Amino acid sequence: MLLIKKLRSVSNLIESFKLNLNKNSLIRNASSYNNDILALEVKGETLKFPYVWLRDNCKCEKCFHPTAKSRILDWSKFDINAKPKDITKHEDYIHVTWNDGHVSTFGLNWLKFRSFTPENQHKYTNELYKPSKVTWKGENFNQVCRKHDYSEIISSDEALLNWLKDTSVYGVSLIQNTPDNVNSIDDVVKRIGFPKQTHYGVRFIVQNVANTSNVAYLSSNLQMHTDLPYYEYCPGVNLLHCLVQTKSLGGENTLSDCHYIANYMKQNHHKEYEILTDTEVEWSDIGTENGNEFYKLYRSPVISLDKHGEVIRVNFSIPQRGNHFPGPIEQVKPWYEAYSLFYKLNQQFSAKFKVDPGNILVFDNIRMLHGRSKYQDSEDNIRKLIGVYVDWDEIYSRIRSLKVKLNNETLY
Amino acid sequence: MLLIKKLRSVSNLIESFKLNLNKNSLIRNASSYNNDILALEVKGETLKFPYVWLRDNCKCEKCFHPTAKSRILDWSKFDINAKPKDITKHEDYIHVTWNDGHVSTFGLNWLKFRSFTPENQHKYTNELYKPSKVTWKGENFNQVCRKHDYSEIISSDEALLNWLKDTSVYGVSLIQNTPDNVNSIDDVVKRIGFPKQTHYGVRFIVQNVANTSNVAYLSSNLQMHTDLPYYEYCPGVNLLHCLVQTKSLGGENTLSDCHYIANYMKQNHHKEYEILTDTEVEWSDIGTENGNEFYKLYRSPVISLDKHGEVIRVNFSIPQRGNHFPGPIEQVKPWYEAYSLFYKLNQQFSAKFKVDPGNILVFDNIRMLHGRSKYQDSEDNIRKLIGVYVDWDEIYSRIRSLKVKLNNETLY
Repeated sequence: MLLIKKLRSVSNLIESFKLNLNKNSLIRNASSYNNDILALEVKGETLKFPYVWLRDNCKCEKCFHPTAKSRILDWSKFDINAKPKDITKHEDYIHVTWNDGHVSTFGLNWLKFRSFTPENQHKYTNELYKPSKVTWKGENFNQVCRKHDYSEIISSDEALLNWLKDTSVYGVSLIQNTPDNVNSIDDVVKRIGFPKQTHYGVRFIVQNVANTSNVAYLSSNLQMHTDLPYYEYCPGVNLLHCLVQTKSLGGENTLSDCHYIANYMKQNHHKEYEILTDTEVEWSDIGTENGNEFYKLYRSPVISLDKHGEVIRVNFSIPQRGNHFPGPIEQVKPWYEAYSLFYKLNQQFSAKFKVDPGNILVFDNIRMLHGRSKYQDSEDNIRKLIGVYVDWDEIYSRIRSLKVKLNNETLY
Repeated sequence: MLLIKKLRSVSNLIESFKLNLNKNSLIRNASSYNNDILALEVKGETLKFPYVWLRDNCKCEKCFHPTAKSRILDWSKFDINAKPKDITKHEDYIHVTWNDGHVSTFGLNWLKFRSFTPENQHKYTNELYKPSKVTWKGENFNQVCRKHDYSEIISSDEALLNWLKDTSVYGVSLIQNTPDNVNSIDDVVKRIGFPKQTHYGVRFIVQNVANTSNVAYLSSNLQMHTDLPYYEYCPGVNLLHCLVQTKSLGGENTLSDCHYIANYMKQNHHKEYEILTDTEVEWSDIGTENGNEFYKLYRSPVISLDKHGEVIRVNFSIPQRGNHFPGPIEQVKPWYEAYSLFYKLNQQFSAKFKVDPGNILVFDNIRMLHGRSKYQDSEDNIRKLIGVYVDWDEIYSRIRSLKVKLNNETLY
């Protein structure tokens, strides 16, 4: 081990470290940040870390539980003004001795991975937190809807990761060669984790049903929508296994990327975009399923933005919008105008396709609108799909776990 | 039926209805709203309804599916400029003939329930959408934590509704006299709907475990926190059935109402309140449970506000806050100061109590912090709780269904 070490005693009031350790390393205090920040040179780059953050993230056994991989600091005794008394830099880690005598060790790679530079934060966000999305319109559907193989997803972690990444990036994917069995879809879900249950059950069968509690279970034209917008915890991803496709005309799917459309409206119909991101409406589903009554209501705009102005969720359903309008009466007519425009643009920029038996159509239910054209069952041809939902919490978790596993990374 | 009817033919361009129907009824156009609004006198009160909203909510069989209780209008043909050609008022309903000849009927009670007046919207929001919350501090715990009986909840809809309302209003409740069985809690959950599964399973056992994947499964002091803040769809309500309580010192619960504390900070520590509502941090859980790897991350502030500035969710955990800080370095130290103040106030305003075997402690996991003091198992006394989560989507749904059922209301 190349040990490059320089120690200097400092008082509790010390205002700066300016320790030249060797040609490539420098520990100093960045005086512009109230002397609360360590500046550290790592491979020619100066990285800065607040003292409070370093102390909070000490990895010794008193501060961090090794198997629970969790901080176990007693917060009622935590000193947010802790300062280093001494810092020693080694080839690939630093030793910090704090003013109360506590000692912490931080690997340089560990620190670099957590660096506060905007470039590093951007990289971490897009590569590990959530993969960046690529938006598309109908004419590009065949390029973005990647085809994956059922058996490969079941047997290979690489194939599983590729499929999940495609689904998160493009919002849609197709699994082919699925065994003709009502339970096949469960094995795919198990590769991720577990399904999201709703009041319609864990799995649902999409076929024509008389006296249905849901218009999706009719053979008539199913207008473009998101599923279950009346759930605050709206199912993240919809997996639809086609067991029997109709031989009649129709039964085609339509699919549109609302992230593309939101962006298009932002640029070309800004007033309507603002109305759809601002005005809350009430999504609703009231009925009985398997003997259990439900009365779901959820208020949100058609296009929900996060704190950074990015689209995080889209809600759209003609049948499942309630008839209470929660805002002022003056907002009603302009809202209907914006809503109708949104629907028209979704149709305009949608893709149309018919899936084959053995296909599982997978799409992001809080990003895409999906619909289906009218069809006709016959005695020996009854269209039948098995559907199941999985939440994004589980999918992103699986993507991250697989990335770390396949890249053999140690992040903690 | 008292039939008071007055008809007048109107052209598509008609600008106003001013039909005096009888002393108590009046249909007229409110000219201040671009002639797009019907003003209707119902029991001495003038209620206004936009034409587009009325047309959208027509309840005839062509527009509304009777069993799916859903709109089935073909939106691509919907005319947002539809205007009534003729309106007839009867004692308890109105008939509207639209300019394309379509006829709609609306009950006056149905309309009144959906009226756009701020008073009505406020009433509907607080009585049906979501019951208003009552905030509290530790010294009031005994008044707000209502006691409910296990058998009554299982057998009576009134008892079930009362329990769920108390839980939603105060964020905490206690179920007593629960049978000493690991499955008893399931029967309570079934009365609501179904549990929320997480990567820790459907149910979880809280007891001291060596080499745990979660610090909750230790007998050491468990600092106040919310469960699973790293889930975007964070479990809504936590039910903890105490099967065995410790006979040692400790094992007490602490509980605090963060809605009270958020409000307190807003008034007394506004800068820190703004930091905690603005600054996103990363909540994290990484490990393996039952052979399945998980890598959960979720970014959000400690106090999440909705569009109306109301607290909708609180996230707090010392062990389960990740070590990536997603914001600019300048935000770090002020954030730690605000976070420490928040924790101190939660301790200051918390309640402390010890539950008995046979109790199920129920609390709002996105509103309360909960913790537990250190205890000591012995050979014949191993503290054991069974935990399960249920989402607010299912609880509010059950509350609404029960209200309608018990009041014998027909809302659709």
